[in-house]
Amino acid sequence: MNRRMIFNAVGIVLKVEAVLLLLPALVSALYRERSFLAFIITAAVSFFLGMLPSLLLKPRTRLIYAKEGFIIVAFTWVMLSLIGAIPFVISGEISSPVDAFFETVSGFTTTGASVVADMEVMSHGILFWRSFTHWIGGMGIIVFVMAILPNVSERPIHILRAEVPGPITGKLVPRIKDTAVILYLIYIVMTLIEIVLLVIGGMPLFESVVHAFGTAGTGGFGVKRDSIGGYSPYLQWVITVFMVLFGVNFNLYYLIIIKKFKTVFKSSELWCYLGVVLSSVALITFNIRGIFGTFSESLRAASFQVASIISTTGYATADFNLWPSLSKNILLILMFIGGCAGSTAGGIKVSRIVVLFKLIGNEIKRMIHPRSVTSLRFEGKVLDGATKKNISNYYLIYFVCFFAIFLCLSIEPFDLETNLTATAACFNNVGPGFGMVGPTGGYGDYSNFSKLVLSVGMLLGRLEIYPLIIACMPAAWSKNR
Amino acid sequence: MNRRMIFNAVGIVLKVEAVLLLLPALVSALYRERSFLAFIITAAVSFFLGMLPSLLLKPRTRLIYAKEGFIIVAFTWVMLSLIGAIPFVISGEISSPVDAFFETVSGFTTTGASVVADMEVMSHGILFWRSFTHWIGGMGIIVFVMAILPNVSERPIHILRAEVPGPITGKLVPRIKDTAVILYLIYIVMTLIEIVLLVIGGMPLFESVVHAFGTAGTGGFGVKRDSIGGYSPYLQWVITVFMVLFGVNFNLYYLIIIKKFKTVFKSSELWCYLGVVLSSVALITFNIRGIFGTFSESLRAASFQVASIISTTGYATADFNLWPSLSKNILLILMFIGGCAGSTAGGIKVSRIVVLFKLIGNEIKRMIHPRSVTSLRFEGKVLDGATKKNISNYYLIYFVCFFAIFLCLSIEPFDLETNLTATAACFNNVGPGFGMVGPTGGYGDYSNFSKLVLSVGMLLGRLEIYPLIIACMPAAWSKNR
Repeated sequence: MNRRMIFNAVGIVLKVEAVLLLLPALVSALYRERSFLAFIITAAVSFFLGMLPSLLLKPRTRLIYAKEGFIIVAFTWVMLSLIGAIPFVISGEISSPVDAFFETVSGFTTTGASVVADMEVMSHGILFWRSFTHWIGGMGIIVFVMAILPNVSERPIHILRAEVPGPITGKLVPRIKDTAVILYLIYIVMTLIEIVLLVIGGMPLFESVVHAFGTAGTGGFGVKRDSIGGYSPYLQWVITVFMVLFGVNFNLYYLIIIKKFKTVFKSSELWCYLGVVLSSVALITFNIRGIFGTFSESLRAASFQVASIISTTGYATADFNLWPSLSKNILLILMFIGGCAGSTAGGIKVSRIVVLFKLIGNEIKRMIHPRSVTSLRFEGKVLDGATKKNISNYYLIYFVCFFAIFLCLSIEPFDLETNLTATAACFNNVGPGFGMVGPTGGYGDYSNFSKLVLSVGMLLGRLEIYPLIIACMPAAWSKNR
Repeated sequence: MNRRMIFNAVGIVLKVEAVLLLLPALVSALYRERSFLAFIITAAVSFFLGMLPSLLLKPRTRLIYAKEGFIIVAFTWVMLSLIGAIPFVISGEISSPVDAFFETVSGFTTTGASVVADMEVMSHGILFWRSFTHWIGGMGIIVFVMAILPNVSERPIHILRAEVPGPITGKLVPRIKDTAVILYLIYIVMTLIEIVLLVIGGMPLFESVVHAFGTAGTGGFGVKRDSIGGYSPYLQWVITVFMVLFGVNFNLYYLIIIKKFKTVFKSSELWCYLGVVLSSVALITFNIRGIFGTFSESLRAASFQVASIISTTGYATADFNLWPSLSKNILLILMFIGGCAGSTAGGIKVSRIVVLFKLIGNEIKRMIHPRSVTSLRFEGKVLDGATKKNISNYYLIYFVCFFAIFLCLSIEPFDLETNLTATAACFNNVGPGFGMVGPTGGYGDYSNFSKLVLSVGMLLGRLEIYPLIIACMPAAWSKNR
């Protein structure tokens, strides 16, 4: 157990967070807002805390194993959120520490669940920071650190695996550092293109940046009470398309860059993802045709909401809480499916859903012909026993966590729809649910206990459960391997 | 593929059903009710249909394999329900064929979900038949046939496995027939004891028999609009205790008879089952103390409802739909857990839940110490890879079926709470849910389409999914093995 290495890795991330905090400070300065000081103070605290490990606990070796990878990621994300909450509290814009922590966790985990009743009265700096956390959390802060600094540790693949969502995390190129750089370059370029397209459509620059952050990280924090509902159809379509794009596995974009179009074309995860999107849009467009005047409006509303929910972004252009059961239940199921592995989206991930159906098909085949030997292929490769076990065990722990969070929320006086969809929306990093936590509502009425439970739920969802649980197991901290 | 054997096995069961139909006919005759004729006609139809296969399709061999076992069970249960619905229609007491089918499936699968608005106006014969289906379905009709007739087929274990719930079905004694006889003897004796205890408590004989059938099969059909709410505390406690008892693995009763107390005492499934019951009762008693006047009333209501839901019986003494969220959500989770394997209860089964947590624990251990080799023990035995895979795959297909049924119900205009708990209550063979399908409500307002979907859901739940799915796969019907 390389404890010193754990603290040092967390320290490095905190130093990076200190630098990142200068960006919202700059925004505050530009708009001459009082929140400027809040960011500077927090940056100083973050930098100081980040310095401590390297001064006090120099690691004897930089070698880490899988369990250190999990613990580094868990610790980093909790510390990141604790520090990230400070500006909200100091500025007084979210004065309750628990609320500020919830909002920050919701930001970094790209959930977008909010306790803020009216974001239109918040300062630009705070609004920028709120959405910037989405952008940082989307691709992963540790991946970012890997991209900009020399190798943090030996065997950094263990950290990459723990932070990047999806059942199978591979390297694009032999060196982890180069992989991280490529991922972030794609991420930055796509975000810039979205900003440009939004500005062209007439959205003010500040709002374009904030919404591009929210889309890229599949987060969902905005600047308006009615989310994206007030913007022009063109702007809504731009965001729709980018929500879908940011829910796609980034490896595919790399494959497009290196011109391996055939491999992209053969990706079963991509086809399933697009298939689910299109069929959901078709069903919902038909189901809500009575609510909207024209076909094109109905199509736009259906497309936006489907893209927003399956990519687990959480922006809204319509109050889908008032839609018929069929549309609502499709959206509920999309919350669980989520985007593709290796994207910034949350949820179970399309690849795991594809493997799920293949596992079930195989099991039924095996029952009909007990002696037949069948191998299970995914994306052109035969899945080995360990990966299959891994994926089916993930479902087991996923549903146990889901029920546990749901049961904790039972102390609230709210109805089943609210509590159940709040659990689903936070655990899958979506943001809005139905009932009280619908697109026009929020999480402000939950008790502090439930807000902390939901914060843990968001972190569990973003980090795909294991890191946080392993970090809490005493067995993981023992000296022997 | 031994198709002839499939039809012959189904034929035998239909002949047995014809004989069983004479019992409600007798009840109708005693009460001089018109429904007498309905039972006699149905018995004749059932006997005639049951004769056909043995006249037209004599099997060349009586050897069957696992897939024939699944198909026999699936066919039997569908035919059983179709025939069993006829008396309701002919007597005119449930005139809609779809409603009658729903009610019969609900009976045989021991669900207890009802479309009947007022059972107090129904004839004694029909009420008897309705509850008798619970009793037949509880332990299994094919197990019954095996107990009373010479071996139906070679390798009858394949049929036993497909009909008896639980992940691991073993034989109590070397011969299957003897196992079936022992199970049914225990079942009959326990039912008789309950009848005697109810009669002693002042319940009329007819009602005692009907409620004992409902308890023994963990079904839930009663004769009163307020279920068990109008009976004395003594009678409520008797039913509470027997609901818990019928949720226990019957193998344990056999072990008690042959005086292997130590093995019973060591059963982890039993302890977990009792632990869940007791802790749920404690939490709910505390949570609902404000609704009831005294502690004893609160304890009685909590105990009855917990026993009813975890054993998936579905009787009620209070409208738990009006209870606070915590109590409701505990009950909702109990619906999924269900009783022990090898009992008459539905749900996922306690043994699968125990293994679930062990699988998760193992997975986390493996992530912390990737090279460690750990074996997973259950009930004193090491679980082999096939059984573990079997159980985790069951969870996967279970949740896919759950979401599929839920999505089909979305065409209804009802709220999420109603549709979700209707799915849970039917699929887990419980009966009442929350909202419109709560203990004071019913399934009468669902459309015919949804009633058929829920009927399929009840059959899937009772037969633990695979038989019905395999019977629908063309691959299962191909000639080659």
